[in-house]
Amino acid sequence: MPISRIAIGTREEATHPSALKAALAEFISTLIFVFAGQGSGMAFSKLTGGGATTPAGLIAAALAHAFGLFVAVSVAANISGGHVNPAVTFGAFIGGNITLLRGILYWIAQLLGSTVACLLLRFSTGGLSTGTFGLTGVSVWEALVLEIVMTFGLVYTVYATALDPKRGSLGTIAPIAIGFIVGANVLAGGAFDGASMNPAVSFGPALVSWSWDAHWVYWAGPLIGGGLAGLVYELFFISHTHEQLPSVEY
Amino acid sequence: MPISRIAIGTREEATHPSALKAALAEFISTLIFVFAGQGSGMAFSKLTGGGATTPAGLIAAALAHAFGLFVAVSVAANISGGHVNPAVTFGAFIGGNITLLRGILYWIAQLLGSTVACLLLRFSTGGLSTGTFGLTGVSVWEALVLEIVMTFGLVYTVYATALDPKRGSLGTIAPIAIGFIVGANVLAGGAFDGASMNPAVSFGPALVSWSWDAHWVYWAGPLIGGGLAGLVYELFFISHTHEQLPSVEY
Amino acid sequence: MPISRIAIGTREEATHPSALKAALAEFISTLIFVFAGQGSGMAFSKLTGGGATTPAGLIAAALAHAFGLFVAVSVAANISGGHVNPAVTFGAFIGGNITLLRGILYWIAQLLGSTVACLLLRFSTGGLSTGTFGLTGVSVWEALVLEIVMTFGLVYTVYATALDPKRGSLGTIAPIAIGFIVGANVLAGGAFDGASMNPAVSFGPALVSWSWDAHWVYWAGPLIGGGLAGLVYELFFISHTHEQLPSVEY
Amino acid sequence: MPISRIAIGTREEATHPSALKAALAEFISTLIFVFAGQGSGMAFSKLTGGGATTPAGLIAAALAHAFGLFVAVSVAANISGGHVNPAVTFGAFIGGNITLLRGILYWIAQLLGSTVACLLLRFSTGGLSTGTFGLTGVSVWEALVLEIVMTFGLVYTVYATALDPKRGSLGTIAPIAIGFIVGANVLAGGAFDGASMNPAVSFGPALVSWSWDAHWVYWAGPLIGGGLAGLVYELFFISHTHEQLPSVEY
Repeated sequence: MPISRIAIGTREEATHPSALKAALAEFISTLIFVFAGQGSGMAFSKLTGGGATTPAGLIAAALAHAFGLFVAVSVAANISGGHVNPAVTFGAFIGGNITLLRGILYWIAQLLGSTVACLLLRFSTGGLSTGTFGLTGVSVWEALVLEIVMTFGLVYTVYATALDPKRGSLGTIAPIAIGFIVGANVLAGGAFDGASMNPAVSFGPALVSWSWDAHWVYWAGPLIGGGLAGLVYELFFISHTHEQLPSVEY
Repeated sequence: MPISRIAIGTREEATHPSALKAALAEFISTLIFVFAGQGSGMAFSKLTGGGATTPAGLIAAALAHAFGLFVAVSVAANISGGHVNPAVTFGAFIGGNITLLRGILYWIAQLLGSTVACLLLRFSTGGLSTGTFGLTGVSVWEALVLEIVMTFGLVYTVYATALDPKRGSLGTIAPIAIGFIVGANVLAGGAFDGASMNPAVSFGPALVSWSWDAHWVYWAGPLIGGGLAGLVYELFFISHTHEQLPSVEY
Repeated sequence: MPISRIAIGTREEATHPSALKAALAEFISTLIFVFAGQGSGMAFSKLTGGGATTPAGLIAAALAHAFGLFVAVSVAANISGGHVNPAVTFGAFIGGNITLLRGILYWIAQLLGSTVACLLLRFSTGGLSTGTFGLTGVSVWEALVLEIVMTFGLVYTVYATALDPKRGSLGTIAPIAIGFIVGANVLAGGAFDGASMNPAVSFGPALVSWSWDAHWVYWAGPLIGGGLAGLVYELFFISHTHEQLPSVEY
Repeated sequence: MPISRIAIGTREEATHPSALKAALAEFISTLIFVFAGQGSGMAFSKLTGGGATTPAGLIAAALAHAFGLFVAVSVAANISGGHVNPAVTFGAFIGGNITLLRGILYWIAQLLGSTVACLLLRFSTGGLSTGTFGLTGVSVWEALVLEIVMTFGLVYTVYATALDPKRGSLGTIAPIAIGFIVGANVLAGGAFDGASMNPAVSFGPALVSWSWDAHWVYWAGPLIGGGLAGLVYELFFISHTHEQLPSVEY
């Protein structure tokens, strides 16, 4: 359980190089994830001459985010725990699985990774602008609920497959599950608010395009949803358990 | 083998908090699954202005259900066995892998999870109506056979990969297999009867939209198919086996 | 290594009930696979009014076959070795991994499973005809080479991930690899000859629709490709190896 | 950790048959991968009458490359380490995980495999020409950056999931991660420069179609990106680590 291990490690040695290595891993993973996710949206715009989202466009976005996040979580899993998302880091913090100091370090690395990915995309696509997240026919309050529900599902998945000491062999497929719940949610929420579930994913494009409309929704929603998932999972499925059996093969 | 373990546990301690935790896990998992699955249909309707299903729409539905169910099964696997489907619970009951009391508890949790998911979708999409399952150019009897065959495949998969004591390392990828057989069947049956394979998936939207046309088909088909799968697998591949070898690496 | 075990088992006890159980498992798995694969083609025809294949149609077919075969192989893996394909059974026979008697039993079960799947599809779709495999702008010889190359890749994958005693943890993801190489090849060959790679997949629809044009290609190609893969893998990567190291974690 | 083992093995026995077996495995895997990847592009051209890339076409290409590479890496993993890409071999060489001699052998095998795949595709599709990689609205320098970033992500994934001695159970899903990061990047970069990330993938079609426009970009970009990934990962996450803990379950 890398994240828990990291949490303990941090308390002992907040300035240990492993903290910086973990931040570097979060930076690279978020860069890889946002490059594929944002890039798929820019590719769609190019292929359709800036056309409106179609079901095929939503499928492309869902696959790019599912595959990209799965890989981004995998490659950072043993180094930083593979958060790649400030909401996941916040949810892990709420559940006591990461220290505040290291959490802040992760946030900075994640926001930087997303921003650099957007700058690289802008340059390497001949100056196309990165897409930004916005509301399509829904109010900010509806989008807020949407982000809360979807991010709850994401962070709940992180807890059940990667943080739960009883996860057993689920840990082996944890990165796939974490990536694919985002893919599934993009197919649902993508048509309404872009289905971010990740403040870093919304921050980079907003900064590079300097457009902040309803941006707070993409912070408030994921942080509330992620925090709730951390509380619920710790409260009902970890803290209060009395089973001391070793984790079992699913 | 979480489900079998639960079954034993239940006989010993029907009122144990673990039964309520399992029900909570089923509620959350069904909510996550239905939110993505139903939501993908609502997204398609929005993007196409309520247009008829296209191959791209079927692909979106298949991926949302495959990815969503894979994750929903994963996150509940070690807590409730990851049924997320009254037909799976019924099939597990037929095969003696869950007690009646716990099975009823699961059904209530699954139906509630689906209903809450639909209410959340209706609110967070600005009041769009959830799609409902219906027949497209097939009779109720044809749809009944379709649901029976597809749900047989689903519950048979649950038995072979998650309940069979000889499953070996198949258990590691069981949630992926369970999610993906539903995705594969949606690509086939989705164009004819919506390919539910899950009474909870049909119940939530029917209740929220209050439309019950041919609703019984989405209960009878999955329960018959799931029960058959439980009987066949237990009869031929578990009960009658005499091999006492430890389960082998595939 | 289930298949090898079965091979030994068979020599010892050709009439043992386990042989019949394995055949039943092959029958059910082939039925599940063909139902999803063929069904996805019928769904496409319905949604497009019998329109010509489009890229979206090819994607739907690829996913239905990839997901369906992955699951079909998984659920039979520990019982029959999860062939679900006469070409795989032939390739396993060429490599000495299954006896002739059991191989014939598998072939019968696979052809029956495909046929029953097509009959169930015809009934449950309101009498739509199952699609049949045919050549689109390629000669029989070109299609033959196409089927040989694609089936070589499929059976080579079965050997490397499921039959090789040194496969190590690859065995855990073997069913996914076996399903996905078929999905990948459908995206390539599907537009030219339907990308069968499996005589059972072509036989059921041909029998039910009674159309046998160029049907021999869908037997000769897969059997030649599958046999070649068995020979090549056994010759270069199993028989001649002198490394006696235990299989390693990838 | 097959690749490292091979590296050591090579130093000891450069002319050992295992080196030739590894080259044969690279040849076959690259052939399987390019056949599916290139073939999917030719299928799209055929189905659309040579139409311009659409989002559906990009999805088909992404899935064919993701599924095909996942399988190609899997089937060679225990024999050659599953490079299937001169940039991966170069990145492994930079990190000291393969010797120069064996690396050259791999390059030859990979380029041959890609070329043979293209010749087989040209024949078996009735003489259709294989697509070639080219720039769409981007300069060679922009494409160079695109290939560098995307290949960095690919080779970084190879290091984190397959070469890192601390990878633990990530090794089980390594081939899936390696295939899927390519699929994710195709959805982004595919619309701009074809998203090769692999000199062999670009070389085969260029040779068979004899069109070398900007071909150097598809060598320079992947080699720079792959080499960088090898340096970065070895420097920060392998060489400098002092943790001697056994690799942990994710």
